[in-house]
Amino acid sequence: MVKNKTQLTWKKAKKIIPGGNMLLSKRPEIFLPNKWPAYFKIAKGCMVTDLDNKTYLDMSLMGVGTCVLGYANNQIDKAVNANMKKGNMSTLNCEEEYLLAEKLLKINKWADMVKFARTGGEANAIAIRIARAALGRKKNIAICGYHGWHDWYLSANLKNKKNLDQHLLSGLSTIGVPKNLENTVYPFNFNNIDELTKVIKNNNIGILKMEIFRSKPPSKEFLEAIKDLKKKYKFILIFDECTSGFRETFGGIHKKFNIYPDICIYGKALGNGYGITAIVGKKKIMDYAQQTFISSTFWTERVGPTAALKTLEVMEETKSWEKISKKGKYFKKKLNILAKKYNLPINIFGTDGIPSFNFNSKDNIKYKTFITQEMLKSQILASNVIYISVKHDMKKINSYFNCLDPIFQKIAECENGNKIQKLLEGPVCHTTFQRLN
Amino acid sequence: MVKNKTQLTWKKAKKIIPGGNMLLSKRPEIFLPNKWPAYFKIAKGCMVTDLDNKTYLDMSLMGVGTCVLGYANNQIDKAVNANMKKGNMSTLNCEEEYLLAEKLLKINKWADMVKFARTGGEANAIAIRIARAALGRKKNIAICGYHGWHDWYLSANLKNKKNLDQHLLSGLSTIGVPKNLENTVYPFNFNNIDELTKVIKNNNIGILKMEIFRSKPPSKEFLEAIKDLKKKYKFILIFDECTSGFRETFGGIHKKFNIYPDICIYGKALGNGYGITAIVGKKKIMDYAQQTFISSTFWTERVGPTAALKTLEVMEETKSWEKISKKGKYFKKKLNILAKKYNLPINIFGTDGIPSFNFNSKDNIKYKTFITQEMLKSQILASNVIYISVKHDMKKINSYFNCLDPIFQKIAECENGNKIQKLLEGPVCHTTFQRLN
Repeated sequence: MVKNKTQLTWKKAKKIIPGGNMLLSKRPEIFLPNKWPAYFKIAKGCMVTDLDNKTYLDMSLMGVGTCVLGYANNQIDKAVNANMKKGNMSTLNCEEEYLLAEKLLKINKWADMVKFARTGGEANAIAIRIARAALGRKKNIAICGYHGWHDWYLSANLKNKKNLDQHLLSGLSTIGVPKNLENTVYPFNFNNIDELTKVIKNNNIGILKMEIFRSKPPSKEFLEAIKDLKKKYKFILIFDECTSGFRETFGGIHKKFNIYPDICIYGKALGNGYGITAIVGKKKIMDYAQQTFISSTFWTERVGPTAALKTLEVMEETKSWEKISKKGKYFKKKLNILAKKYNLPINIFGTDGIPSFNFNSKDNIKYKTFITQEMLKSQILASNVIYISVKHDMKKINSYFNCLDPIFQKIAECENGNKIQKLLEGPVCHTTFQRLN
Repeated sequence: MVKNKTQLTWKKAKKIIPGGNMLLSKRPEIFLPNKWPAYFKIAKGCMVTDLDNKTYLDMSLMGVGTCVLGYANNQIDKAVNANMKKGNMSTLNCEEEYLLAEKLLKINKWADMVKFARTGGEANAIAIRIARAALGRKKNIAICGYHGWHDWYLSANLKNKKNLDQHLLSGLSTIGVPKNLENTVYPFNFNNIDELTKVIKNNNIGILKMEIFRSKPPSKEFLEAIKDLKKKYKFILIFDECTSGFRETFGGIHKKFNIYPDICIYGKALGNGYGITAIVGKKKIMDYAQQTFISSTFWTERVGPTAALKTLEVMEETKSWEKISKKGKYFKKKLNILAKKYNLPINIFGTDGIPSFNFNSKDNIKYKTFITQEMLKSQILASNVIYISVKHDMKKINSYFNCLDPIFQKIAECENGNKIQKLLEGPVCHTTFQRLN
C-alpha cells in the first residue's frame, strides 16, 4: 500500500478538481493543513477510517450535520438497499416522494404542500423562485444567514463584498455572478431589530429569508419585530432550516420559538447522509410552483425519499432530537467546567445539538489549530464545533474531554506568556474562503 | 389493497406536491391523462411494475434516459451497496470522487479538471458560473437546446416568451425569474448558421452553450461555423451532453463529430439512475471555480460517484453505446418499414440511441396519444420516443412492433377518412408546460 495515501490523494485531487473537492467545509485546510485526513474509506457510528486504515472518533462535523443517527445506520441502509433492489429509478415516479410529502406535512401542520430537491443550494433557489413567482412583480429579498452558492444569494455581495461577511462565510467573491442582480438582495444582522426594520422599510422587500438560530438564539424582541413587520409589509417569510432542522425538535427549530414561516427548507439531517432536501410551504404560495418551470431528472430518484422516510421514522421512535440536545447540553457544561479550571476566556455558543466555542484571544485561530493538531494525535477529529449524533455516548464524550484537558492547560500557559506558535507543527487553519494550491 | 392505487396516489399527490412530482417528463399527463401509470414499485431490466402489481415493458423513456444498463443493474447496485455499508457520508471526503474525476479525464483527453454535482440543472448552472468567472467582465451567453430550470437559462424568455419554444419545451413562463437578467442570454436555432453568426456578432457573446445533437445531427457547415466563430470571437464553448453523453460513444457525442468544447457537462446515463452529474473542462477555465464560491453538502455523498465508476466500468467492458446504437438502428428500420406498409407520413429522427418519430399530420398529437393508449392495453409503456437500453433485446423490440402493427393500421385508416377522435378513450396528452389540476 502507498504510504500516506490519504494525504497523497488530496494532493493529486487538487490538481484535477478545482479546490480539491465539492464542499468548502470538507477541505482539510479548514481543519489542519497537510495533516487532517482528507478521505475516509469506512464510516460507522461516529468512527471514521481513513485510506491508511487509521480510525478516528469524529467529534467534529459528523458529515457536516447530516448524520444525526450515526454513519451507516443499519435501519436506514436496510430500507435504502431494499428499494435499490426494486429499482432506484424508472420512467414512472416513486411512491416514496408522495409518502415523504405526507409525512412532512404531518410534522409541519402550518404547511400544505411540498417540493423536493437533492441539495440545499437547490432547495434555497427553488424557494426563492416560488416566492418571487407568488409576488408577481419586482420585489427584493432580505436575508440573514447562509443560504448556498447560487447567484441569487451571492448577489448580496455585488454592491459591497463584505455584505455577507457576518453570515457564516467571509470573503465570498462575486466573480461570475451577473452584475445585473445588484440591489436585489439585502442582508441584515441577526437580532438587530433596527437594521432589520431599515432594510425592510427602504428596499421594497417582498421576501425575508433567514436561519432562525445558528450561533445564538433569536431574542424575543427580534422575533416579535419579524412578526410585526410581516403584518405591515406582507413579505413572504422563509426559514432555512437545512442546518437546524430535526436537531432540536421533530421538525424545525422554529417550533421552539412559536414563530411559523410561509416556507421552510429542510436538508442535511433529513436523510441521515443521503441526498434529499425539501421545500415545505403554504398552498397559496407553493402553488405558484405550477406556473414557473422547476424540474430536474435526479429529483425523482428513490434513494433520497426512502432514506428520509426511514430517518424520520427512527427519529420519531427514538426522539433523537431530545437525545442529542441532552448530550450537547452535557458537552457544553463539561467544556465550561474545563475552561474555568484553566481560567480560559471561552465563549460557548450554538444550539444544544451543535455546540461551538472560541476564545476571547488574539490567538483564537491558533488555539483552534492547536486543538485539532493535538486531538488528531489521539485519533480524534476535533475542531471548535461538534455536530452531536446519537452515537456520541458518554464514554466517547468523556474520552474527548480527557484528551482536551492537557490541551486546555497548554493554551492557558500560552495565555500566560508562552508562545502558541512554538507548539504549532504546521500552518494555521484557513478561516475564510480562499484559493488552494 | 386499494383498487387502482396508482391513479389514486397521483390524484392525492397533486394536492400536496405542486405539479404532482419533481419532473415534467414524468407527469402521466404528458403520456396519457388518467391512465398512464404514475408510480412504480419495482423496476428491473426494462420491466416496470406499478402500485397495482401490473407489469409493463418500458419502450418509452427508460428513466428519462438515465438507465442505459437497465433498471436495478446488479453490478452497479452491488458496488453501491458495498460502499453504503462502509458509509455513504462522513466528515471526510470519499475517494470515489477523485477516482471518478481521473476516469472522466481519461475519457475526455482534451480536458484537465472536473467538478461534480447531483443534478443536471446544477451542473449547467455551475458551468455558467465558472465560465462567467473566467471571462472576468460582462459578457452574454448564446444558447441552443435545453439546459435546465435555473434563472440564467429561463431568462432567455424574458424579452420574448417564445424564445425557448424551439429548444425542447415550449411555453416556459419567466414568472419568478428576475427581470434584471433580461438580455443576458440569446437563443439561436440549431443548424442555422446565419442566426448563430448574427447572435454572436451582435450581442457581446462570451459563452456558447449547446446540445450538439438532440433531434437531428449537426451539419458539417454548422460545426465549421462554430469553430470559425470561436476563433474569431474567442467565446467559451460548452457542450451540454446530459442527454447525449455515453449513448453514442464512450463519452460525449461530440467525439463523433470531431469538435471539442472548453467544458462538457455529463449527467443522466453517467450513474445509470443514481444521481451524479459532472462538469469536465480545460484547466484555464475550470480553475476559476477556485475564485468563485460553488459548494454543496450533498455533492460529497458517496452513492453518486460509486455508481458512476461502476457504470463506466460496465459500459467500457460491454461497449454498451455500440449495443444500444445497433438496437436503435434496428428500431428505426423496423419503424420505417411499418410506416411504409401503411403508407403513413412518418418522420423518424433522434440519435440512434434515442429514436423518435412523429407524423406529418394535423392529428399527430392524437396519434401519439392513441399509440400510448393502445400499447398500454398490451402492457407496454410507449410514447413517440424510446431511450434504448441494453436490456431491450430483439424479442422485446419485436413484440413492440407486433403490437404497433394494428395501431399503425388504424392510424392509416384515420389518415384516409376515419375519425381518430372516436378511437381516443380520454383526453389527448399534454404537449407543453401547463398547470395541472
